[in-house]
Amino acid sequence: MSPAWIAVDWGTSNLRVWAMDDSANILGQASSSQGMNAIAADETLSFESVLIGLIENWLDDGYANRLPVIICGMAGAKQGWLEAPYCSVPVHPAKLAAEAVIPDVDDRRIAVSILPGLKQVDDPDVMRGEETQLVGFMAVHPGFDGWVCLPGTHSKWARVFDGTISAFRTYMSGEVFALLSSQSILRHSVDDRWDDAVFEATIRETANQPTGFLHKLFTVRASGLVGNDRVANEPGAAVLSGTVIGTEIADMISMLAPGAKIALIGDGKLAGLYRKALAVHGVDADIVDSASITLAGLGAAYRVIHKK
Amino acid sequence: MSPAWIAVDWGTSNLRVWAMDDSANILGQASSSQGMNAIAADETLSFESVLIGLIENWLDDGYANRLPVIICGMAGAKQGWLEAPYCSVPVHPAKLAAEAVIPDVDDRRIAVSILPGLKQVDDPDVMRGEETQLVGFMAVHPGFDGWVCLPGTHSKWARVFDGTISAFRTYMSGEVFALLSSQSILRHSVDDRWDDAVFEATIRETANQPTGFLHKLFTVRASGLVGNDRVANEPGAAVLSGTVIGTEIADMISMLAPGAKIALIGDGKLAGLYRKALAVHGVDADIVDSASITLAGLGAAYRVIHKK
Repeated sequence: MSPAWIAVDWGTSNLRVWAMDDSANILGQASSSQGMNAIAADETLSFESVLIGLIENWLDDGYANRLPVIICGMAGAKQGWLEAPYCSVPVHPAKLAAEAVIPDVDDRRIAVSILPGLKQVDDPDVMRGEETQLVGFMAVHPGFDGWVCLPGTHSKWARVFDGTISAFRTYMSGEVFALLSSQSILRHSVDDRWDDAVFEATIRETANQPTGFLHKLFTVRASGLVGNDRVANEPGAAVLSGTVIGTEIADMISMLAPGAKIALIGDGKLAGLYRKALAVHGVDADIVDSASITLAGLGAAYRVIHKK
Repeated sequence: MSPAWIAVDWGTSNLRVWAMDDSANILGQASSSQGMNAIAADETLSFESVLIGLIENWLDDGYANRLPVIICGMAGAKQGWLEAPYCSVPVHPAKLAAEAVIPDVDDRRIAVSILPGLKQVDDPDVMRGEETQLVGFMAVHPGFDGWVCLPGTHSKWARVFDGTISAFRTYMSGEVFALLSSQSILRHSVDDRWDDAVFEATIRETANQPTGFLHKLFTVRASGLVGNDRVANEPGAAVLSGTVIGTEIADMISMLAPGAKIALIGDGKLAGLYRKALAVHGVDADIVDSASITLAGLGAAYRVIHKK
């Protein structure tokens, strides 16, 4: 196997690497739990040693040139390998690639580039990692004009048009859901039970009273206590999830032009819930798989940086 | 000292007792950290033994009759001393007192009554303890027609008119603030710094975009990262507090008739913040001290139960 370059997605808690050829074929892949936090917590580890440990058997001492390695994510954070300062929106993908930073490496077999994150100065906001998914999305869907949503711990909504990312908006929905369901009084009311109809009804309620978040939360607790048969056995997880996602989507929808296009980048259950919630608002959103999109974004950066 | 009765406020984490005469004078007081949770966690403790331990030196073996003890709060919860089932709104204070429950006690010197909490079946909600503050408020302000707000871990807003509590609404504001400032990514952005002007500006922003809670939270984190001089040094605590309290108040205000009267029951800094936030909305709210109000509520129940 002789890869043309190596793609790396280095998150807070995970590291994923792919050996790529020049036609975007995946020749090999590997992953580890040595995300930024694990490396910061263990002084015997360095970003370079962890990376080499994972890709060692893809490297060949006989290369004439160093093998390009393109990294997105937390390796570029202040607490990461080498800080890649945020680029301001509006921004074109080529500019993001051009502002990649190059850390010193001891291993002469690799040439490492770390991509920057994105920032928005007015209505302050930042992202690091998701911008590469957006670039991948734009590469696969040239001419897209609308909003791209990346659900997650910190959900991101980005305005994409004319080949540019012009603005974005983060919601702390995933983190707030996790805290409330595990650390708050609501933990007693959230278990493994789920009901799609209850989730959708909650999305509708939230659409009708989109300012009531902090109150609606408490009804998750109170519903089982008041002897109201209609709500007594509603699964708390579906009400809590519907309240959090519904509040995010109601706010976002209020800022969109009627008929605005929305695409979801994600995988599994969460993106499906966002799709259901958007459908309640009459919006039909497509789901795009996030792993292939990250690779497409790293590939676009690879071609800019290495002039292919 | 010979008290006519004993007032008890038994919360989740605290227990407060007062020796009272028949003219509402306080003859003595004591408190401990043996709230409901501490008793539940230690099988050597019982509610009766903890209570007697705290009031022992107010009791006299020579009483002709048992000394009345009136308790509000978590002693009446399902996990408490004896469950006092919730009363439904609308409710008159006398009805709350009439539905007090009487636990068996081994000590023949006391006659214990535990007051019920309040529930609302439609728009499910519950309170336990605050209803006694509301009763005290109504005793001190007969004829009040408006909303009474009790800020706290779970803020309560109650509609009071015609001598009746007709509806109420809980907001999880205090608990959400505590979780976000200590357990979320925002903990890095919240410290001891504070700025009233930033708090008030955040209340104004939240009034203008009352649906944006989950997004506005993230700006607490992002403000220091994007190089926006206007917000770079804003104290995160003031922005977070303004976002949480502002979201609660914007939702509540949207449901009030113009000119509706609002009273705040509380003490110290938190009630002051609610007062400031309401002033941003053009509402002038009076603050009523919560300790004396609790006593007034327990006293009103004492007079109903013991026919004074």
